[in-house]
Amino acid sequence: MRIAQVAPLWESVPPKLYGGTERIVSYITEELVAMGHDVTLFASGDSETAARLEAICPQALRLNTGIFNRDAPLMMLQERALGATVDFDIIHSHLDFIGFPLARRNTVPVVTTLHGRLDLPELVPVFREFSEMPLVSISDAQRHPLPWAHWAGTVHHGLPRSLYSFHPQAQGYLAFLGRISPEKRPDQAIEIAKRAGLPLRIAAKVDPADQNYFEAEIEPLLNHPLIEFIGEISDAEKDEFIGNAMALVCPYDWPEPFGLVLIEALACGTPVLAYRRGSIPEIINHGVTGFICETVSEMVDAVGQVALIDRGQCRAAFDERFTADRMARDYVALYERLLEDGDGQTAHAFASGQLNNGSFKTEQHQILGRG
Amino acid sequence: MRIAQVAPLWESVPPKLYGGTERIVSYITEELVAMGHDVTLFASGDSETAARLEAICPQALRLNTGIFNRDAPLMMLQERALGATVDFDIIHSHLDFIGFPLARRNTVPVVTTLHGRLDLPELVPVFREFSEMPLVSISDAQRHPLPWAHWAGTVHHGLPRSLYSFHPQAQGYLAFLGRISPEKRPDQAIEIAKRAGLPLRIAAKVDPADQNYFEAEIEPLLNHPLIEFIGEISDAEKDEFIGNAMALVCPYDWPEPFGLVLIEALACGTPVLAYRRGSIPEIINHGVTGFICETVSEMVDAVGQVALIDRGQCRAAFDERFTADRMARDYVALYERLLEDGDGQTAHAFASGQLNNGSFKTEQHQILGRG
Repeated sequence: MRIAQVAPLWESVPPKLYGGTERIVSYITEELVAMGHDVTLFASGDSETAARLEAICPQALRLNTGIFNRDAPLMMLQERALGATVDFDIIHSHLDFIGFPLARRNTVPVVTTLHGRLDLPELVPVFREFSEMPLVSISDAQRHPLPWAHWAGTVHHGLPRSLYSFHPQAQGYLAFLGRISPEKRPDQAIEIAKRAGLPLRIAAKVDPADQNYFEAEIEPLLNHPLIEFIGEISDAEKDEFIGNAMALVCPYDWPEPFGLVLIEALACGTPVLAYRRGSIPEIINHGVTGFICETVSEMVDAVGQVALIDRGQCRAAFDERFTADRMARDYVALYERLLEDGDGQTAHAFASGQLNNGSFKTEQHQILGRG
Repeated sequence: MRIAQVAPLWESVPPKLYGGTERIVSYITEELVAMGHDVTLFASGDSETAARLEAICPQALRLNTGIFNRDAPLMMLQERALGATVDFDIIHSHLDFIGFPLARRNTVPVVTTLHGRLDLPELVPVFREFSEMPLVSISDAQRHPLPWAHWAGTVHHGLPRSLYSFHPQAQGYLAFLGRISPEKRPDQAIEIAKRAGLPLRIAAKVDPADQNYFEAEIEPLLNHPLIEFIGEISDAEKDEFIGNAMALVCPYDWPEPFGLVLIEALACGTPVLAYRRGSIPEIINHGVTGFICETVSEMVDAVGQVALIDRGQCRAAFDERFTADRMARDYVALYERLLEDGDGQTAHAFASGQLNNGSFKTEQHQILGRG
């Protein structure tokens, strides 16, 4: 299949620093190439891929402080990736709704994976206006604010099979990994460890926006024999940090659309303790790969039961449900379904209706006749 | 003529606070209505106009802090104003290059006035890519970084004829009006006044970004019997402040594409002293409506000659060259020229070529046959 992957330009593909979306775009792209598809990646020029790279700007925008008007390269990306009539069977956009106006007018079907939160009221008119655009959610829970949108499927994220190694034996500590921010509740992770009487290692970066929160709420809690704050760690260090932990403690108090760190833990064989929020119940199997809790006390109790979890089951869940090749196969199946069903048909109809008749009209024969 | 005016949503039209672009869009819109044209204004819902208002969002984005993702209303604006096939003869966009992808694909010609600086390297690929889009500069000088772009004309800004009143008699002070920022050189305005031995009144706001500059460089200069800093003034106060001044001192050291304050001064009958930068020589007639200088010393000398300027000539220059009705008539002539020449023809060709032939082709007959 001739597939275009369209990445945001904020980070390179894969990202040099943190960049969840660009990381996933990289995994999808490389797996599709490995499967034998003809893949073109639209991204910043410092990206690295086995696909054909269409470089829109020399450097990722996040790193290029010389670019003052970031709308300019983003517009070039839209025009080149979504505007031109090019020989793709399908275009897969990771640009959020930014790509919709040109996607709607493209004769090649465009499918968009939404990588972020959807609970902003100003998004409602956008998804109503572009209601014919097929969308992919990264969890079923992500759809919650916009259940009526045109969902073509849910595809959970996946990681390369060998990115993390299975650790059959844990050492005697709990792990917290992520950003220090109020909605991640590092304060509760600390409380849980103290009440359970187990060491907690916190590997976390503190963004400038969260510096005040860190100093006011978290730093005073760190001076305790059970608590160790080790700051930000590299990707290479994550394998040991997560893999040696008894459990990853994720007392997140917001509906995260998909928590990559959860499947990183499963890949290592490390069970996950988390609240019932957002995508968590789709990722963690209660009692099998971790515990889904409602309160701090329940999570303290769960720490006591974590030794009952078979770490092999955690890795097995990863191998079965959260690898990059499973993700890529899901996407290919979704592309095929869209092409067979004539979804993305509205794009054709819109483009044709727009220009031939001066009004929007669904002309299914035109779409189905596309070949 | 059926004309659409497309304003950015940052401020209402006219703006509640500062907003140069929205102010000009308002003047054009109201003058076109007064001339009898059928005008539709795409803007925020708190705009006020005699035209048909197409409200994209209830409130200007600058004032609505409840909107987190500002790309969402901007996308709705593009789709509604530039995407739909609607019954306009011409669409006049003030969205900078943001409107280009849909403008290119619209069967109605779209002309874009560029309101800002163009000297950013990242703009070059955008204007090369969209080289068929007709552009209006607000001064000839503004074109300097992109002389090869598709310029359809220059239209200088204008103000309503009765917005400012003619002040035949000046009081004995110089005036500085604007933002306190390094490129406006308020330090030089102060030096010039001191060397000329004349009082200087400074009416200026200090943006948070310029607070350090103000405190370090300007505040120490204010403690002098000739210098009076009166802070930010309202539009209503500007008439007296500028009109009673011997001259407006504008030692700007950057190529401002158009200085609205210069024509405010001319409307009051107040001569302008400025350096030869950007649009200045297009606005000020040396020796007639002010003096164009090269150095601080020349500007000190010019202060001594300012009594030779006939204030009636300044107002006459305003009445002849810088009124809103002249601006609107210029735009109508430009619209007519574009329609007659078939400029915006490329938009048609692009749209047709794109969808019928799968490649860009200029098909002039299709455009000229639009009626």
